[in-house]
Amino acid sequence: MSLIVQKYGGTSVGDLKRIQNVARRVAGTHAEGHQVVVVLSAMSGVTSNLLAMASEIMDNPDKRELDMLLATGEQTTIALMAMTLHSMKYPAISLLGYQAEICTNERSGNARITHIGAERIRALLKSRNIVIIAGFQGCDSSGNITTLGRGGSDTSAVAIAAALQADVCEIYTDVDGIYTTDPNICHKARKIDRISFDEMLEMSSLGAKVLQIRSVEFAKKYNVPIHVRSSFSEEEGTMVVNEDTPDMERLVVSGVTCNKDEARLTFRKVPDQPGIAAKIFSPIAKAGILVDMIIQNTRSEGQTDLTFTVPKAKLSKALEISKEVAQDVQATEVLVADHIAKISVIGMGMKNHSGVASKMFETLANENINIRLISTSEIRISCIIEEKYTELAVRALHSAFNLDRE
Amino acid sequence: MSLIVQKYGGTSVGDLKRIQNVARRVAGTHAEGHQVVVVLSAMSGVTSNLLAMASEIMDNPDKRELDMLLATGEQTTIALMAMTLHSMKYPAISLLGYQAEICTNERSGNARITHIGAERIRALLKSRNIVIIAGFQGCDSSGNITTLGRGGSDTSAVAIAAALQADVCEIYTDVDGIYTTDPNICHKARKIDRISFDEMLEMSSLGAKVLQIRSVEFAKKYNVPIHVRSSFSEEEGTMVVNEDTPDMERLVVSGVTCNKDEARLTFRKVPDQPGIAAKIFSPIAKAGILVDMIIQNTRSEGQTDLTFTVPKAKLSKALEISKEVAQDVQATEVLVADHIAKISVIGMGMKNHSGVASKMFETLANENINIRLISTSEIRISCIIEEKYTELAVRALHSAFNLDRE
Repeated sequence: MSLIVQKYGGTSVGDLKRIQNVARRVAGTHAEGHQVVVVLSAMSGVTSNLLAMASEIMDNPDKRELDMLLATGEQTTIALMAMTLHSMKYPAISLLGYQAEICTNERSGNARITHIGAERIRALLKSRNIVIIAGFQGCDSSGNITTLGRGGSDTSAVAIAAALQADVCEIYTDVDGIYTTDPNICHKARKIDRISFDEMLEMSSLGAKVLQIRSVEFAKKYNVPIHVRSSFSEEEGTMVVNEDTPDMERLVVSGVTCNKDEARLTFRKVPDQPGIAAKIFSPIAKAGILVDMIIQNTRSEGQTDLTFTVPKAKLSKALEISKEVAQDVQATEVLVADHIAKISVIGMGMKNHSGVASKMFETLANENINIRLISTSEIRISCIIEEKYTELAVRALHSAFNLDRE
Repeated sequence: MSLIVQKYGGTSVGDLKRIQNVARRVAGTHAEGHQVVVVLSAMSGVTSNLLAMASEIMDNPDKRELDMLLATGEQTTIALMAMTLHSMKYPAISLLGYQAEICTNERSGNARITHIGAERIRALLKSRNIVIIAGFQGCDSSGNITTLGRGGSDTSAVAIAAALQADVCEIYTDVDGIYTTDPNICHKARKIDRISFDEMLEMSSLGAKVLQIRSVEFAKKYNVPIHVRSSFSEEEGTMVVNEDTPDMERLVVSGVTCNKDEARLTFRKVPDQPGIAAKIFSPIAKAGILVDMIIQNTRSEGQTDLTFTVPKAKLSKALEISKEVAQDVQATEVLVADHIAKISVIGMGMKNHSGVASKMFETLANENINIRLISTSEIRISCIIEEKYTELAVRALHSAFNLDRE
């Protein structure tokens, strides 16, 4: 007997018929003798409708009131799911965030889970109940409803799995697992059977949109195995697990990702002096803009070029700040490039295998793709290239690193 | 400065535009310097939609889960109302049942309020917030959401007003007050300016559908003045107040009501012995059927006829039980009449004025309406007549007791 947490997204519970499908799967797991906790999102479309209503009232509605409004979406699905399981003669009970003691900090709209009181859930499981918990929501110390931000239901599920020391956290979605790259770009993309938390973190932050990055961080921290799979089929999906698992080192590279959501800024001919970087990045950080890559090239005559990337959505704000700072740091000009893409190859194998970087550069060179910026982590190499080469680069790298499906 | 509780029903908050109208009225009261607590129902239609979804899943959904589902309706309106008030630059905060500490017993679907912790509401009012509370819902001692049953938002409002010792509880609805009789039946019906709790209790239990009877009981118990008025106009409505108010005794009769929802059962020629009534009414009570009027006429030869009324919806069940009991109590037969109506005249003045009953009987006799059954309370006289005479009887009595509008 295992303790299994199953999370179903909005598409999986989009209407009563789909809720019934999910209920059958949940009931099946329960009938096999497992303890089952179900974490649900709002029915697809519901959250957007509520947001639309709120924005009809005012531009920046109060975050506490917005959380109050949005939390109704998950509340509806958990009640309907409990009823559906009852109609199939299974014992089930729904719990809201505060009832499941999902305690968060006070950051309405983007709260962080601080603690989960697992006692009530455990007691309900012990008496053979299927426990259905509203995802995306928690409760702060004053009893206010908080929500966890975009994709928060994944985080709810993994945090609950961690608190219960569940055997596995199954994340059901509308795709059947994690792929070596975006199948829309490369039709030879292959489903990955197993992937490490670290690789998944690099993949999700770089554009694979299946799993919420915070939930993976949580899973890594508490070592909760995640099983990403489709709610529309019975096939096994992708296991996201601890890196120590031995058979994970077979492939050097696990995946290729691309991201077109960044833009590049360059401060030209900045004096190569201590304190310059701080002068540039402090005001940008203060404006809440996340800088991704930063590269500094030394030029001749004590001057340097400083290049970095920011989200495209924040480019105009970042440029405004940069122009103000430019004079101060004596840059000759600030250059902008917004038709760029970041291509990354990711793999645990890089830790032990050399030559991955040079193979990446060679592959791009063979396609006549110019590399504008390079950054690396222990298990990732990323290159900024011109946006128009994105698909070509992804396919070439996917093939070069032996990821193509036969 | 007064402390005012305002309750708005589903029609008053039926869409964003109407919510805005309500917000303007609330803001107006706040701007006059009053402390304002707002209690809201779900947007009209929402609760029925949720009920329809639940009944699509199964016939008798679990009451706890149904409460979980239904409570989302009020949660949506309070959040939208708070945002609307914010957009008008008024300080406002929404509270759910559990956040406002509306404690109830465990009877899901039909819970009774046991206690309201007014501290948080008081503190919020003190710092000049408009406090918006979800009607219809509370929280039991285990933290489950409970709902208060049909018309529960009225009860929420009055209970909150009682806990806060509010100066008045304004119940906003789609009619502009309590009328001397149903204006659809008698176009000379008049709006009543002031009415006592007791009269209102008799009126609402007898068919005037404006105020939920439980809320009036609450208001009487804690002496909370209720002001029933329209959310679509600025006119004063009807004050429902303590009977001690001096100017209430001018009219002997305050209103005429009718009720077509009952049916009559008669046990013929029952032996006039102790214990017979118990034999008849115990099994009926056990089946959850509320008996309204009971009349026993002594016949000759130690026999008696026993007549009573039950809700039409429960007639077939009541008849079934009655037939079983009939043999046991040696009744010769059980007669049924379901085309009947109960006509009542209500008035505090009856306590001090004689002749009301005889005037009622005379008036009906003048119209050739036969009286089948009579029952009275301290402030009410009710007659059962044939259903087809309902409208005629109401108009004749309304006129006879000087209630007609000029």
